Amino acid sequence: MSGIFITFEGPEGAGKSTNIYYLANRLEEAGYPILVTREPGGTLLSERVRDLLIDPRFKGMAVDTELLLIFAARAEHLQQVILPALKEGKTVICDRFTDATYAYQGGGRGIDENKITLLERVVQGTLRPDLTLLFDVDATIGLSRVIKSRDGLDRFERESLTFFEAVRAAYWRRAEQYPGIYRVIDASKSLENVQLQIDACFIEIWERLNVD
Amino acid sequence: MSGIFITFEGPEGAGKSTNIYYLANRLEEAGYPILVTREPGGTLLSERVRDLLIDPRFKGMAVDTELLLIFAARAEHLQQVILPALKEGKTVICDRFTDATYAYQGGGRGIDENKITLLERVVQGTLRPDLTLLFDVDATIGLSRVIKSRDGLDRFERESLTFFEAVRAAYWRRAEQYPGIYRVIDASKSLENVQLQIDACFIEIWERLNVD
Repeated sequence: MSGIFITFEGPEGAGKSTNIYYLANRLEEAGYPILVTREPGGTLLSERVRDLLIDPRFKGMAVDTELLLIFAARAEHLQQVILPALKEGKTVICDRFTDATYAYQGGGRGIDENKITLLERVVQGTLRPDLTLLFDVDATIGLSRVIKSRDGLDRFERESLTFFEAVRAAYWRRAEQYPGIYRVIDASKSLENVQLQIDACFIEIWERLNVD
Repeated sequence: MSGIFITFEGPEGAGKSTNIYYLANRLEEAGYPILVTREPGGTLLSERVRDLLIDPRFKGMAVDTELLLIFAARAEHLQQVILPALKEGKTVICDRFTDATYAYQGGGRGIDENKITLLERVVQGTLRPDLTLLFDVDATIGLSRVIKSRDGLDRFERESLTFFEAVRAAYWRRAEQYPGIYRVIDASKSLENVQLQIDACFIEIWERLNVD
């Protein structure tokens, strides 16, 4: 039996981190083995690559460099963590994956989508998420939550409002393109309301796990 | 006027580093502006990526990760250093470039050449070296020179003789495929003899620079 691959997507300050554990706990309580991980990162080496990606000192980084570093970290994460866990039948919940690359590097940085698709095939073959929860929130609200909560801002968090609006628009295009995979969570609502929306996803995941 | 792009290729212990400065000095003395650089590396960020690549602690690194990290470092090096220098009319001499990827990751690690070609196009567009000096030496001789000269061996230097024989064979295939670009230097000879071989390349480069 191969596990289910779930990704959490969305801009800064959308509440992904809090809610990823809410879903993971519900699934664990229901008796399913779970692995929670994140991108860029998830392995010792990939976290070192993440450090380079978010370091504000590298603010002049070429866009192709950023794109390739992200896929390098992803290749390592897939081979060492995600694929073995799925093979063991675990449900993997990953905080950001390739949809974030389409949103940030495609939408935000303006990299040609075909280039991303090409790297996606090189690194992932045919692997795609089974379900993607998009935490959608107005870019202004997301950014103001980030600025309030952080001591220093990383290389991405320092981007402009225009950048984050382009990221959000790119996520929306992906959601419209892949309605079978995307579930849009209205992250502007209260935590209680957001968790009710996640409960609906939990039921869907539970049903899929019981069909497999 | 755009400069000429020269690469030095070859296995460990072939004497590239010593001789790259020999050629650079001859060109400088002849009045040509020169930039000497190396891969993986050549920028602050790319050198950090190099540190990850050669770190023996990451000996379990997935082959796709290695390949993508190399092209990430290359994308940065190209955008920040090589392309601007060529545009200024400098002759760029680079210690290893994409032919090393074909030799080490293709020949040594067994990565499909088409995957490398695809990344080469993504990162470089149509840019290729104008001239490649291949420092050819028997893998046993090269390795024994490295083991004698180094305190600790990096992740690549720890590879087996079989690995380096596959690297050498891959370099030879490239040299046969691109006779207009490759000049094979017999690096098993004395330093004096090797420099006579480089002198022949110098004359060829000098003629090209005077035609442009």
